[in-house]
Amino acid sequence: MSAYQAPLRDMLFTLQHIAGLDAICAQPGFEDTSPDLVEAILEEASRFATGVLDPINWSGDQQGARWDQGVVHSADGFKEAYAQFCETGWNGMPASPEFGGQGLPTAVSTAVLEMWKSSNMAFSLCQMLTLGAVEALARHASPELQQRFLPKMVSGQWTGTMNLTEPQAGSDLSAIRSKAVPEGDHHRISGHKIFITWGEHDMAENIVHLVLARLPDAPEGVKGISLFACPKFLVNADGSLGARNDLMCTAIEHKLGIHASPTAVMSFGDQGGAIGYLVGEAHKGLGHMFTMMNHARLNVGLEGVAIAERAYQRARAYALDRVQGRTLVAGSPAIIGHPDVRRMLMTMKARVEAMRALAYFAAGEMDRAHGHPDEAVRTQKQALVDLLIPIVKGWCTETAQLVVADGVQVHGGMGFIEETGAAQHLRDARITTIYEGTTGIQANDLIGRKLMREGGVTMKALQRAMSADAHRLAEAEDAALRPLGLGLQRGLDALSQATEWLLTCGPQRPAAAAAGAVPYLHLAGTVMGGWLMARSAEAAQARLLRQDGDAAALGAKVATAHHHLHHVLVDAPAWRDRVVNGASSTLSLQDAQF
Amino acid sequence: MSAYQAPLRDMLFTLQHIAGLDAICAQPGFEDTSPDLVEAILEEASRFATGVLDPINWSGDQQGARWDQGVVHSADGFKEAYAQFCETGWNGMPASPEFGGQGLPTAVSTAVLEMWKSSNMAFSLCQMLTLGAVEALARHASPELQQRFLPKMVSGQWTGTMNLTEPQAGSDLSAIRSKAVPEGDHHRISGHKIFITWGEHDMAENIVHLVLARLPDAPEGVKGISLFACPKFLVNADGSLGARNDLMCTAIEHKLGIHASPTAVMSFGDQGGAIGYLVGEAHKGLGHMFTMMNHARLNVGLEGVAIAERAYQRARAYALDRVQGRTLVAGSPAIIGHPDVRRMLMTMKARVEAMRALAYFAAGEMDRAHGHPDEAVRTQKQALVDLLIPIVKGWCTETAQLVVADGVQVHGGMGFIEETGAAQHLRDARITTIYEGTTGIQANDLIGRKLMREGGVTMKALQRAMSADAHRLAEAEDAALRPLGLGLQRGLDALSQATEWLLTCGPQRPAAAAAGAVPYLHLAGTVMGGWLMARSAEAAQARLLRQDGDAAALGAKVATAHHHLHHVLVDAPAWRDRVVNGASSTLSLQDAQF
Repeated sequence: MSAYQAPLRDMLFTLQHIAGLDAICAQPGFEDTSPDLVEAILEEASRFATGVLDPINWSGDQQGARWDQGVVHSADGFKEAYAQFCETGWNGMPASPEFGGQGLPTAVSTAVLEMWKSSNMAFSLCQMLTLGAVEALARHASPELQQRFLPKMVSGQWTGTMNLTEPQAGSDLSAIRSKAVPEGDHHRISGHKIFITWGEHDMAENIVHLVLARLPDAPEGVKGISLFACPKFLVNADGSLGARNDLMCTAIEHKLGIHASPTAVMSFGDQGGAIGYLVGEAHKGLGHMFTMMNHARLNVGLEGVAIAERAYQRARAYALDRVQGRTLVAGSPAIIGHPDVRRMLMTMKARVEAMRALAYFAAGEMDRAHGHPDEAVRTQKQALVDLLIPIVKGWCTETAQLVVADGVQVHGGMGFIEETGAAQHLRDARITTIYEGTTGIQANDLIGRKLMREGGVTMKALQRAMSADAHRLAEAEDAALRPLGLGLQRGLDALSQATEWLLTCGPQRPAAAAAGAVPYLHLAGTVMGGWLMARSAEAAQARLLRQDGDAAALGAKVATAHHHLHHVLVDAPAWRDRVVNGASSTLSLQDAQF
Repeated sequence: MSAYQAPLRDMLFTLQHIAGLDAICAQPGFEDTSPDLVEAILEEASRFATGVLDPINWSGDQQGARWDQGVVHSADGFKEAYAQFCETGWNGMPASPEFGGQGLPTAVSTAVLEMWKSSNMAFSLCQMLTLGAVEALARHASPELQQRFLPKMVSGQWTGTMNLTEPQAGSDLSAIRSKAVPEGDHHRISGHKIFITWGEHDMAENIVHLVLARLPDAPEGVKGISLFACPKFLVNADGSLGARNDLMCTAIEHKLGIHASPTAVMSFGDQGGAIGYLVGEAHKGLGHMFTMMNHARLNVGLEGVAIAERAYQRARAYALDRVQGRTLVAGSPAIIGHPDVRRMLMTMKARVEAMRALAYFAAGEMDRAHGHPDEAVRTQKQALVDLLIPIVKGWCTETAQLVVADGVQVHGGMGFIEETGAAQHLRDARITTIYEGTTGIQANDLIGRKLMREGGVTMKALQRAMSADAHRLAEAEDAALRPLGLGLQRGLDALSQATEWLLTCGPQRPAAAAAGAVPYLHLAGTVMGGWLMARSAEAAQARLLRQDGDAAALGAKVATAHHHLHHVLVDAPAWRDRVVNGASSTLSLQDAQF
């Protein structure tokens, strides 16, 4: 089975030319982050991913986490790997320096997180949830609660979870029924929560559950939900662990993938009420929980990139090794020399690089939105980030499904055999379009809050910026760039037409607009991916001209951009047609006619 | 968990209006097959599928077949279901009457087989392999061998397998190394075979393995492979079972799906050689094995239809039941009232019906190719069938992947939980694009042997027929039909352009043609699916006008054809572009640049 190797060259290329790393490092607060340091960090992370996390990925999948009487045993090797992960400081790396993190730019931590997710997605989820809980506490909890929980959560000594979903309250959190009754300086929490990632395990000594519940006087709906911190073990005044809190894991789910990540069914308050501490303001829990939504959604989008990269690497290794039949490509005797296998690999590669470009671009814009010295730029970048996030989340995870499927297909019959490892990526990837808001929810967020609510201001500005790049490339002296500019312009025409349709018809016909929301998200991601691939090709050509870098790799970037144009960006008009013409058939049947 | 219900109405509609059932029943040899009888058979089969096969589908997946010291135990309930399946005569139903089958038209048995595959694909594979072996023996074995094996294989008392693949010989069977040494009236077979579906099990008293192997004097390559029948138990002169043959199942594979169908690793001749009987002529085994290829590939394409149908039914049941959030579609309070969920369900429905139309159409043409009274028609239909089969196999199985993925997505988080059942369909479906020739192999067959070799004669004739339909519909008085005709014409333009490109450039640039083979297959399937949906809409409108049938169902057929036009057929130009412009980027990198 081929080992994971972080695609350092493409990561650094994308950070530099797409995320704008140099400019980010020049921002106030990142004075200590030089591009050289970033390269060193990425190399170190890559060794950890290859040496520690990748070797327990498949075994973890096959063994899975195991529940026994409320205790969850992590898969073999996970406990040791997690200890090493925390010791070497990787757990808290993306957190704020205020709480022991390294305060690196989001763009940089994004590249590092991609490695954890590629090498072992199930493992990476524990850190991801912990960091989400850290961010919520850091923004909203009292200083006393922060002091009690944050240092140990950042170090990884304790982990964190998000307890949102209940059986009747999934995408619609207004239906939450869990209760919180005030008692002294805390509350008593009771209720049932499902789909709690790493909700119970044996890798850390304590788990801090963030739980959404209703106070006795809470109004109905989303405006009556409050956020509470419920530690598995109560914490004494001296910071030592006290009594077991009244909460337990009653089962873990039997899932299609991410088997080594326990998905817990949690019961709070069977013995009278779990002790929980209010985080932030009463009734504002949903807002508090969603303050870290952009990071969480970026990270799930990144899972799409990461698993797709891993699937590509595995398929490439197999196709370069397996000999079967006479190939048509000269000098390429293994099955990668069969044009259709080569087409699949090229398309996988093009999709992965376009996805990575979009995810890192969004991460770079988050850094600017957060720390650019000019407030007007910060405001504008924040609006852009808000627009991009549902696209990163929705489009990268949907695109990943295509890549992992090709990854299985390249292996032929061996792809269907679990020992090969390709099937695990297909199974693991399947959750990414669902959790942290389904693709449908991302798309509704995109067309509603991000597009129609502001009359398309931010999207139109981005379209203009992309159009300027397309014109420049279409008229470039360099013949390798011109088709990329022309193709991008065609894609942009489709995107602009769909945008106009939504802005014109959407307000009057909300159901029709919603029927086109997911196609619009695909269209936006496809065109933005094509845009960033064209920009990457432009940067690569410039470096080739000045002989700056590996010519084979830079040439591959240009060829891959062309492949993206001819095999991916060509989908743009059909996505537009689905938005513009597709709603009436979607809405034409009565329920009984299905 | 929702129970499978055969889509009898759509099956009968498609048999009648697309396969041309009335005309088939009027052919010589089918005098006893009336449309009424067909309806009765389908209803009976549907009861068996719902009552016997569906209830053990998910439990069979979860338990799987189990290997123990060379013995394979089938999943609970399979043995009993198989006994009932054989007792009621379903096993041999599609076989020739000469050997105890019912001699029904292929179009009819296709609808019945769809039910077995929908309700329990793992179970259905045992019959499918047995019938393939029956067909090979019926065509090529000596009368003595036929008498020894066929009656009990048709009844299902014994089952059959196909032993083709070896570790080094998958898609490239020329690399087969298994040996056959003559000895008296038989041969001694030795070698290792993998991926043997139902290669060992406990549902029948004997298993007749058809094995590809090389004689001592065999030439290299595909022209030195012979076919042998190797029964698990030797058969005495009186028909009773004799000694155990020297062959065994050394393991079964741990697979992504179809867990209840044991995929055996077989070892022949560990004790000196398994006794095998030459089937047909020496060195012509591959040809003998491939005489039933059209039926086998039709049947695997049908698996795409069947699993997609099952996934659609499960998603529909969930979406009609699950309430979550306020919907935008009036009168539709469950999640099916969310426009994006409705879009997914409509697209699933449109894809399933288009796939079914293409599969049944091909089956009907097989009946005409086989038994039409006019020899010229038979010849022409056979050429059409040969053209259609790789499209049915490749396009229906690839399209199924999209449907089963939407099936998971409609369930949200529950889709990722195995107990829901949606994930099984995703896992089971994944093998269909691989076995019986990968999509790449189907596509190469399509552009090579079926298109370029004859200069596109059959494809162009089909394009003309489709174009005539498109023109008629585009100019129809009925306004509901005109957009279908116009849309089809646009799709046909794309197909014709790609066909011309392949015929013009393909002979000189075989690698470039092969790079576009799979996109061409997708294009052909997409356009043909659109064609048959448009024809279905025309038939439904005609029946609506004369008040012949359920108006809601007929109206749904028209709406579904429109949905197919706006959401599926719109992909045609992009597929053309991939064929016509996509080869150079596919072939532009050196191996080391991937």
